[in-house]
Amino acid sequence: MFVLTEVLQHWMLKLAVDDTMQKALELVMTKTEHSEELSEHHERVIRQDHDFIRNLESVFRRGIAEGLFRSDLDPAVCAATFMALCSGLARLNINHPSELDMAKHCTMVSDIFFSGVKAPSTRSE
Amino acid sequence: MFVLTEVLQHWMLKLAVDDTMQKALELVMTKTEHSEELSEHHERVIRQDHDFIRNLESVFRRGIAEGLFRSDLDPAVCAATFMALCSGLARLNINHPSELDMAKHCTMVSDIFFSGVKAPSTRSE
Repeated sequence: MFVLTEVLQHWMLKLAVDDTMQKALELVMTKTEHSEELSEHHERVIRQDHDFIRNLESVFRRGIAEGLFRSDLDPAVCAATFMALCSGLARLNINHPSELDMAKHCTMVSDIFFSGVKAPSTRSE
Repeated sequence: MFVLTEVLQHWMLKLAVDDTMQKALELVMTKTEHSEELSEHHERVIRQDHDFIRNLESVFRRGIAEGLFRSDLDPAVCAATFMALCSGLARLNINHPSELDMAKHCTMVSDIFFSGVKAPSTRSE
């Protein structure tokens, strides 16, 4: 769980401070299909995303087996939802940069997601 | 809460079955900046998204005030996270259509998000 929390928070912090990554993401997410030069890169990103989702799935599967995450969840659905959240945050940062202060609120956003997936017995209220 | 759950599930069901919307989203999310004809539409979508986030924020604010949602959450952060999730799901559906069966898993995805934001007292385990 801590690894995934770090992944999400690290991602949001990068979105907040890394201008180069921001520009690269903007290219990848909005412009790659329109340039022959970049279309190959677009394919590569899709493959990398796919590998990332498979890795996430195995982390969630393990977390469920270890009782950290809710046993009623499907690890593939958790992984896809986590991936969707990461990519949606990147998009929000491109189109609506003032809507969410990524650096300031990365803890709260990851807390929303992980409170949703963690097993009731691990909750500390 | 029920309204928001319905919004998210309805969105995922639309992603699953509405080919016209899927094509429109693909245009809006990946191609609008490259066409003069569509760039005006892109601006409009950004404004609509902004209004949608403001509406979400007021729903979350009310839900927090009524004790349905966690009192330690910021309604603006909840709204931005919800929006990011919706747009990330749309993107996943474009780039990785086989990763998540939107129709089959809309309940589980919305359950992950809403379990993360709802107040401990409303949890039924």
